[in-house]
Amino acid sequence: MSAASRPEGQGRRAGFAAVVTLTFDVDAETPVLARGRRYAAHASTMSHQAYGPEVGLPRILELLDEMSVPATFFVPGWVAEHRPWLAPSIAERGHEVAHHSYSHRPPTSMTAEEERADFERALAVFDRQGIEIRGHRAALWEASWQTGGLVAEYGLRYDSSLMGDDRPYKVRTPAGEIVELPVHWSLDDWEQYAFLPAPHVGSVIESPVKVLELWRAELDGMRHYGGLFNLCLHPFLSGRPGRALALRRFLEYARGCADVSFARCRDVAESARTDAGSAVRDLHPPEASPDVYPD
Amino acid sequence: MSAASRPEGQGRRAGFAAVVTLTFDVDAETPVLARGRRYAAHASTMSHQAYGPEVGLPRILELLDEMSVPATFFVPGWVAEHRPWLAPSIAERGHEVAHHSYSHRPPTSMTAEEERADFERALAVFDRQGIEIRGHRAALWEASWQTGGLVAEYGLRYDSSLMGDDRPYKVRTPAGEIVELPVHWSLDDWEQYAFLPAPHVGSVIESPVKVLELWRAELDGMRHYGGLFNLCLHPFLSGRPGRALALRRFLEYARGCADVSFARCRDVAESARTDAGSAVRDLHPPEASPDVYPD
Amino acid sequence: MSAASRPEGQGRRAGFAAVVTLTFDVDAETPVLARGRRYAAHASTMSHQAYGPEVGLPRILELLDEMSVPATFFVPGWVAEHRPWLAPSIAERGHEVAHHSYSHRPPTSMTAEEERADFERALAVFDRQGIEIRGHRAALWEASWQTGGLVAEYGLRYDSSLMGDDRPYKVRTPAGEIVELPVHWSLDDWEQYAFLPAPHVGSVIESPVKVLELWRAELDGMRHYGGLFNLCLHPFLSGRPGRALALRRFLEYARGCADVSFARCRDVAESARTDAGSAVRDLHPPEASPDVYPD
Amino acid sequence: MSAASRPEGQGRRAGFAAVVTLTFDVDAETPVLARGRRYAAHASTMSHQAYGPEVGLPRILELLDEMSVPATFFVPGWVAEHRPWLAPSIAERGHEVAHHSYSHRPPTSMTAEEERADFERALAVFDRQGIEIRGHRAALWEASWQTGGLVAEYGLRYDSSLMGDDRPYKVRTPAGEIVELPVHWSLDDWEQYAFLPAPHVGSVIESPVKVLELWRAELDGMRHYGGLFNLCLHPFLSGRPGRALALRRFLEYARGCADVSFARCRDVAESARTDAGSAVRDLHPPEASPDVYPD
Repeated sequence: MSAASRPEGQGRRAGFAAVVTLTFDVDAETPVLARGRRYAAHASTMSHQAYGPEVGLPRILELLDEMSVPATFFVPGWVAEHRPWLAPSIAERGHEVAHHSYSHRPPTSMTAEEERADFERALAVFDRQGIEIRGHRAALWEASWQTGGLVAEYGLRYDSSLMGDDRPYKVRTPAGEIVELPVHWSLDDWEQYAFLPAPHVGSVIESPVKVLELWRAELDGMRHYGGLFNLCLHPFLSGRPGRALALRRFLEYARGCADVSFARCRDVAESARTDAGSAVRDLHPPEASPDVYPD
Repeated sequence: MSAASRPEGQGRRAGFAAVVTLTFDVDAETPVLARGRRYAAHASTMSHQAYGPEVGLPRILELLDEMSVPATFFVPGWVAEHRPWLAPSIAERGHEVAHHSYSHRPPTSMTAEEERADFERALAVFDRQGIEIRGHRAALWEASWQTGGLVAEYGLRYDSSLMGDDRPYKVRTPAGEIVELPVHWSLDDWEQYAFLPAPHVGSVIESPVKVLELWRAELDGMRHYGGLFNLCLHPFLSGRPGRALALRRFLEYARGCADVSFARCRDVAESARTDAGSAVRDLHPPEASPDVYPD
Repeated sequence: MSAASRPEGQGRRAGFAAVVTLTFDVDAETPVLARGRRYAAHASTMSHQAYGPEVGLPRILELLDEMSVPATFFVPGWVAEHRPWLAPSIAERGHEVAHHSYSHRPPTSMTAEEERADFERALAVFDRQGIEIRGHRAALWEASWQTGGLVAEYGLRYDSSLMGDDRPYKVRTPAGEIVELPVHWSLDDWEQYAFLPAPHVGSVIESPVKVLELWRAELDGMRHYGGLFNLCLHPFLSGRPGRALALRRFLEYARGCADVSFARCRDVAESARTDAGSAVRDLHPPEASPDVYPD
Repeated sequence: MSAASRPEGQGRRAGFAAVVTLTFDVDAETPVLARGRRYAAHASTMSHQAYGPEVGLPRILELLDEMSVPATFFVPGWVAEHRPWLAPSIAERGHEVAHHSYSHRPPTSMTAEEERADFERALAVFDRQGIEIRGHRAALWEASWQTGGLVAEYGLRYDSSLMGDDRPYKVRTPAGEIVELPVHWSLDDWEQYAFLPAPHVGSVIESPVKVLELWRAELDGMRHYGGLFNLCLHPFLSGRPGRALALRRFLEYARGCADVSFARCRDVAESARTDAGSAVRDLHPPEASPDVYPD
């Protein structure tokens, strides 16, 4: 759909119940280092980030086993390389491992060449570890207009960084069509739970009670309208005990809804790829001329 | 009323029940581009904004149909021009389309000439599309002292950018009297839901459960005192499923109150224009002398 | 009590029930102008501030009449001068008008001479209006170490800007002893409700439901320990309909508590002045040597 | 455990119920002075901080007596030196006093020599006061990679500044092994309650009702998974009446849980030291090469 054409109705869609893709961005130290290499000297902050792969991740994997729920883990190449046991421990349980950049530096902060090099470097890590990659999520959900083309060019099937819909859609790129599994800030645990003094992140910290309420409200919205509940969690945040318990309660709620199903991102992407009813969008920046927007 | 005269009582006003003007600021990409043209390169952010007209808006229009509620849509000229189907799709359902600047750059950031040019440019777009415009809302709710005069000079009847009351009031301008339909930050979904990493916007994201609670409390206040419940929503925020469901619940609540009615802004403005009981205010900046406020 | 001496117990104090001093800081445009004279050009922001004296204040006065509750209004001299009807409309209902600086520029941002001149200028305004002043509250609750001395020197009885206790206490100044009626950020509506885009103020806006819950919890704490519930409200914030209704509910709750009484600040100060059991504190800055705190 | 080895499961641990270490960071003026010596001139802010030792602390000590709960107080040396009655008043009730730097300047902001000098200076204060010190917590929870080594070198048994787990763990340092009692931002009252205009701290202020809900949810999480509920409170924040009452209710809840026990940090550290099942971690910064993280 181009901007010039009129969109279809977005009301209740019969037969399109909510699908939950439970996703975990296993960022470890990378989002902090991407804010400044100097933060490597902050021992407390680094331990806060290391908690993710070392404590939160195994706890989450056990919870998923217990609940028999499939999930997708977006892993920066740097994290997979420095903790070589990590990606296999996910894959061997039947979950999906997906591409989440190498360094977690956002594409919007890099040149096209830098983004490509970072993209390739992560793929090489996963290739050496025998991990098959089908999808990608941009660091900080900050894709460039080139990102989708890289996803297609390197043979991946889907991206999960854009927010142009709340259902899977197709994106045309110079290297072919891919599927987009859209994300949204309201389904990200970062805005609810993250706090760090340096680099400065967050303000008040929300209670798991509020976050559970939020997720239920959003899932009920997806059930009403039919959409993709693409939840993004970070093991260093949601892997903590009170939050893991809230996640368990959310999973219990979702499993009790007859119109909700769970899937890995790659499986949802595969369905969307062959669904003639999915919207198709082009990737191009809006026109922003200097006479209208001088700064 | 000038600052020197004593205001009338503001207690319960018999016979003045709450009126709900449901308004949508269909900003799309403009508020982000107004923060910096460079953000056009941020594909995720642009998709987040495009969601508004392309997914949120059609969903909202269907909801309004279902609920039989009239609404007013404030549309920047840039948005109407780049998506020529947009304004007609609103007007043909009986809703009002109103002027929301051309570029969404706030008047307080422009020279008087720039503000006038931006104001005219939007009117020209709507004129070409055959959309009749009666009212205006300043970008970012950041009117200058000139804004009201432009509204009058170009033949519009009302403005909806000031916060000097919670009932419609009249404003004297050099080009004649207009009606002001006051807004307030507490009735704006932006502070509740908006989040972006770049440009940096927001902090925690509130649950639709809290927002519904807030709206009900504010509506009950307006019912008690008699006032204009001038709710401002953004399709890229409140058009999302869980939030659309909260809006539906709010509309169900409001419709169930015998002392609440719904109207388009132009209809409220017309009533206020002919109501001799409406307050009248002048537009002039407060005296702020450099000896008191040196910076 | 000096820092070197050991404080008395702070547990439940028999016979000292909670006293509520309902206070309103009638700031109007001043806190915004104190952030920058240029904001006088922001018509929407100025209308947001003018709402305080012109709409919020009369509504609050009616509510206090209805509820038969006395209150204290801290008014900047600039506000009293530009709206000469304002202070008399408060005083004639039996409420207290108190000194809240002339310009609302915080003492910590001024030289000693500037602070004194600002302090005097406000007193002159109230004197011309025949308003008797007994107490003072520093702009932004940002007293300097000189502020208490000014209060004593000009013959006022109390200050209400410090946070060294949650009961009234006495402060020794070079010009004599005054009473301090301590404030606290948790009993200020600013952090709950205030939002402005420019100057940038606030983040999410809280619901009156939450604020009512907060006030009840804090009052219950004061009832348990015996203390001064010194609530600070701003007419441009808490004078809005939904919030005025929450304030009414709070007053109903407080009036229903047998161990809660209401008083004007001057009356509480008078009691504390003659209460031999009140703590006494000196005013002096902590030692902060450059070898410990170089920046 | 090094990053290269695979972590053990983190699911429910039989027989490891939740242990509550109630800790108070008695910071007084130090965190503000560490942000800038000039803030010593801010009388209101200084009184806000002085409230901690002078009003909040005695109230908390009485509450702990009433509830028969042991606690640990982390005191900056500067605070103990300027209020010589403070540390003894804690120790004589059977609570633990622990090292919380001298100046509250974070180690990450100092050179290695400065950190060592600050560390030693606090020990000298406690030594002169006859207070036996067993543990340490870094100012602002901002340990450097050197901090753990200092703790070991000066003969202390534990640190409580890192976030690498939610159970006690051992840390190898060049000067020997110590125990880490991990903290986390979600169990810190600062993010919930703190607000200051200058230096700018905080945003909305949460209700004690929400904070009590948060603590209960987190404690339930620790009970489910078995972990250390290492709660960090500040007397200038949680010593206020409404919040002290919420703390009392939390303590009543926790005491009513058969699987929850209370202990001082030194006692938990002693148990962990001799527990062969505790994880062991090394202290070293992650590799952050300039080719990956140029800034």
